[in-house]
Amino acid sequence: MLNFRTDMADERNDLFKQANGIEKNVPGVEVNEIIENNNIKTTIVNIINEQGASAIGKPIGTYITIDVENLRIATEQDIQNASQTMSNQLKQVLDRHVNNLEEALVVGLGNRFMTPDSLGPKVISQIEITRHFIKYTPQYVKQGTRSVSAVAPGVLGTTGMETLEIIKGIVDNVKPKMLIAVDSLSSNNIDRISTTIQIADTGIVPGGGVGNERKELTEQTLGIPVIAIGVPMVKGLPENENFIITPKEIDELIDNMSNIVARGINQSL
Amino acid sequence: MLNFRTDMADERNDLFKQANGIEKNVPGVEVNEIIENNNIKTTIVNIINEQGASAIGKPIGTYITIDVENLRIATEQDIQNASQTMSNQLKQVLDRHVNNLEEALVVGLGNRFMTPDSLGPKVISQIEITRHFIKYTPQYVKQGTRSVSAVAPGVLGTTGMETLEIIKGIVDNVKPKMLIAVDSLSSNNIDRISTTIQIADTGIVPGGGVGNERKELTEQTLGIPVIAIGVPMVKGLPENENFIITPKEIDELIDNMSNIVARGINQSL
Amino acid sequence: MLNFRTDMADERNDLFKQANGIEKNVPGVEVNEIIENNNIKTTIVNIINEQGASAIGKPIGTYITIDVENLRIATEQDIQNASQTMSNQLKQVLDRHVNNLEEALVVGLGNRFMTPDSLGPKVISQIEITRHFIKYTPQYVKQGTRSVSAVAPGVLGTTGMETLEIIKGIVDNVKPKMLIAVDSLSSNNIDRISTTIQIADTGIVPGGGVGNERKELTEQTLGIPVIAIGVPMVKGLPENENFIITPKEIDELIDNMSNIVARGINQSL
Amino acid sequence: MLNFRTDMADERNDLFKQANGIEKNVPGVEVNEIIENNNIKTTIVNIINEQGASAIGKPIGTYITIDVENLRIATEQDIQNASQTMSNQLKQVLDRHVNNLEEALVVGLGNRFMTPDSLGPKVISQIEITRHFIKYTPQYVKQGTRSVSAVAPGVLGTTGMETLEIIKGIVDNVKPKMLIAVDSLSSNNIDRISTTIQIADTGIVPGGGVGNERKELTEQTLGIPVIAIGVPMVKGLPENENFIITPKEIDELIDNMSNIVARGINQSL
Repeated sequence: MLNFRTDMADERNDLFKQANGIEKNVPGVEVNEIIENNNIKTTIVNIINEQGASAIGKPIGTYITIDVENLRIATEQDIQNASQTMSNQLKQVLDRHVNNLEEALVVGLGNRFMTPDSLGPKVISQIEITRHFIKYTPQYVKQGTRSVSAVAPGVLGTTGMETLEIIKGIVDNVKPKMLIAVDSLSSNNIDRISTTIQIADTGIVPGGGVGNERKELTEQTLGIPVIAIGVPMVKGLPENENFIITPKEIDELIDNMSNIVARGINQSL
Repeated sequence: MLNFRTDMADERNDLFKQANGIEKNVPGVEVNEIIENNNIKTTIVNIINEQGASAIGKPIGTYITIDVENLRIATEQDIQNASQTMSNQLKQVLDRHVNNLEEALVVGLGNRFMTPDSLGPKVISQIEITRHFIKYTPQYVKQGTRSVSAVAPGVLGTTGMETLEIIKGIVDNVKPKMLIAVDSLSSNNIDRISTTIQIADTGIVPGGGVGNERKELTEQTLGIPVIAIGVPMVKGLPENENFIITPKEIDELIDNMSNIVARGINQSL
Repeated sequence: MLNFRTDMADERNDLFKQANGIEKNVPGVEVNEIIENNNIKTTIVNIINEQGASAIGKPIGTYITIDVENLRIATEQDIQNASQTMSNQLKQVLDRHVNNLEEALVVGLGNRFMTPDSLGPKVISQIEITRHFIKYTPQYVKQGTRSVSAVAPGVLGTTGMETLEIIKGIVDNVKPKMLIAVDSLSSNNIDRISTTIQIADTGIVPGGGVGNERKELTEQTLGIPVIAIGVPMVKGLPENENFIITPKEIDELIDNMSNIVARGINQSL
Repeated sequence: MLNFRTDMADERNDLFKQANGIEKNVPGVEVNEIIENNNIKTTIVNIINEQGASAIGKPIGTYITIDVENLRIATEQDIQNASQTMSNQLKQVLDRHVNNLEEALVVGLGNRFMTPDSLGPKVISQIEITRHFIKYTPQYVKQGTRSVSAVAPGVLGTTGMETLEIIKGIVDNVKPKMLIAVDSLSSNNIDRISTTIQIADTGIVPGGGVGNERKELTEQTLGIPVIAIGVPMVKGLPENENFIITPKEIDELIDNMSNIVARGINQSL
């Protein structure tokens, strides 16, 4: 496998084509691009068999990347457009994996006390929770409301427990029918930092962004479909792993991006 | 049972004596007071049988309250003294319930986004976690170090899940041998707000402070001993349940108190 | 003068009428009420001469209070409506005191580290600042943009300086043509806490809410008109001045209210 | 002048020597190194005449850099040692510029809402303020206490005003006898990020770290001595000025460093 140094499936696809002089599609991989009016480009990478999985170095499944121009100077309208696009894509992924209105658990990965890793916990605090209303006061809940719960479990360094250990315990006990996991990623392409959202239906390895890689959250380890939503917020510094490259306005960009992702999730659930 | 309107066992004991004209001990209840030099008073209430439990309205067990004078203007030395006293008492409670060095999970109850309810999560971020070092890099860990993990699960209103549902899942999967749960309490005695620490070996009902009462965390529901550490941070306003009485400097007092409680726990584990 | 124990002019007017058996208007005071569709009531108290000022215990000038129902469960639309109403009233006050587009300095009073006193600094961080664009890159600024600057100076306890000393220094050096000062107030009416906005054109005494009263910011002390915007966030506890009564959800209500006030100011400037 | 791309006087001195093949001292520059036991190295660069100033590209004056090893894993003792060393050096600088106990104003430069630029405001919130006690309750203040005030004025982008405009206004009105200004710096040497403190008696240009350079705070612009304390927290990314290189644990390192700097200032005042 190539040493891709990126977690984004579409970047890996491009790198593989370049390295192997492929002009059209990589065998086992289908790619579709959708350009929307408003500075938004969506790329859908389908890895359809083991040959494609082996080439790209990622499991069979669907990887959607949504690139948003000029998010640095986002207006309320830009944020609404981006979350709408994300919501549309996420809905399609959900429809392929769960039946209508099955209970969802949204998990915010990352460390809320490390700014560049705080996207997941910040999204969680904006998710519209309904499970407790449905359970305790169903008479006040509109017909056709999905049961949604959410948790930001912390990271190995702050809890002493693997994220998988915590989430597996909760899933076994609370029994949601699917998991949506949100995390910061790292990207080698500085232009995608805080401008790209990746949706994958193949699960996630916590800590891909700022922390160390940990045990994966997947349908295999948890027993329910795991939809991963990742946003690159940093680029690693090859010469010193204690340092990262981030945007100057990292705090503001994380606020904007967590707002977009949370709205996108809320609209699709 | 009397309508005590306080969660502190020593206050209930006094109220019961007053209401029933008892001069000495309430049958089934033993009380000991320790006055230390440095403005610190410790009261130990032992409820030793069902008669005592019925009188006080709390389960059989030990309830320790530590009152600290002048915590509002605490120096580093005052904070150190208070945490040392707390640590000594907590050690004795631990010794009665677990074998030396058995694995502990510390749980911070309450809502980190509501200032008067944020004590638990703030304590958690100061707990010295060792479980991951012992598991992944035991060669660097001193002999005789207890395995400690910690989590702040959020509250029903932010997660959609009962605290018990989350913690039960984690306990079943991670299998600690005891739980230490930290929470804000409410007190009817304004003088005890942010100056008193209560340690109980009988578990805890989350949300006794600011939120609503939820399912209890006890040895019965979790299968392991549950030591509860509570600090009154608010007084309810009888005429309107949307309002609370808090100290003006609530932010600073929560910082001081979470520092004391975290040090007390760290020193005793 | 009556011991009013409230800072709201309309409450004082009612108390004075009650105490003196007045059925219609207090001499020297004109009162108008506007009920809007959407749960918003506006009361305009004009103190028109010394007789009125002496009765109400406040200087001659205009005091507008806007009461918003159900702000606790505010939707985006409710927030927009409230800020629109506030903006309309504020514009009329501005028109009476400054010429079109004269430079404004917005000052956020209060202590950002004490939650119940943090409204002012939270508003400041949402004000649309233009002064530096107009000064350094006027070519990119739309014709007819007012020069706006903003500062949250801190409180006597955190700076060692009177708010007046800091603001007087800035006003003398930067030379804005008017000041808008935002602060938390206290109210004796629990129903108005975090639901009422008071606009006054007579200046403000910092620290009326949580802190101690300090030297006033007025046209007399600063040499430019001072429009005060105050929101009651606490009620004092008569029996112990170290304690206050606040809503349980004080953090969330301050976020909502600072959003409304900041939008109201931005729209009117 | 060389294009130094660093703000640290000792680095510039080394670069100048290297570029010009100088083995001993640069003419007009005196350098002294002090190695302490505990992993702390102090370098004192004195620029003594215009020839030195021209070589180094900095005004005549004293520049002290304190390098602390292993601050990433600092214990309470390490933090105390570092602040003691800083305090000793700062005291000597103060003694050369102000008479004993003359009133000091401490200014925290930088943007509290941008993590890598938040050092200055975080230091300010830990400064021991005395001016208001001396002014309003002198009977409770120990003889020989210096009058200290402090302010974090914000940055041009959040206030619309130059830092110099705000501080000049305050200095003219409050009349302190010296200014201590604390700011984040950038450094080209990644090893010095969050491990080095520079003290200079020649003033400071705000925004050297994360923001853009602004008008200088110096004795010439303010009329009182300006002692600058700077800590490099970021390295610029030459190929894209919207990005910076920071430590992964930037939040924790800023907390540690602001603690050290605040203690150092408190001990020397």
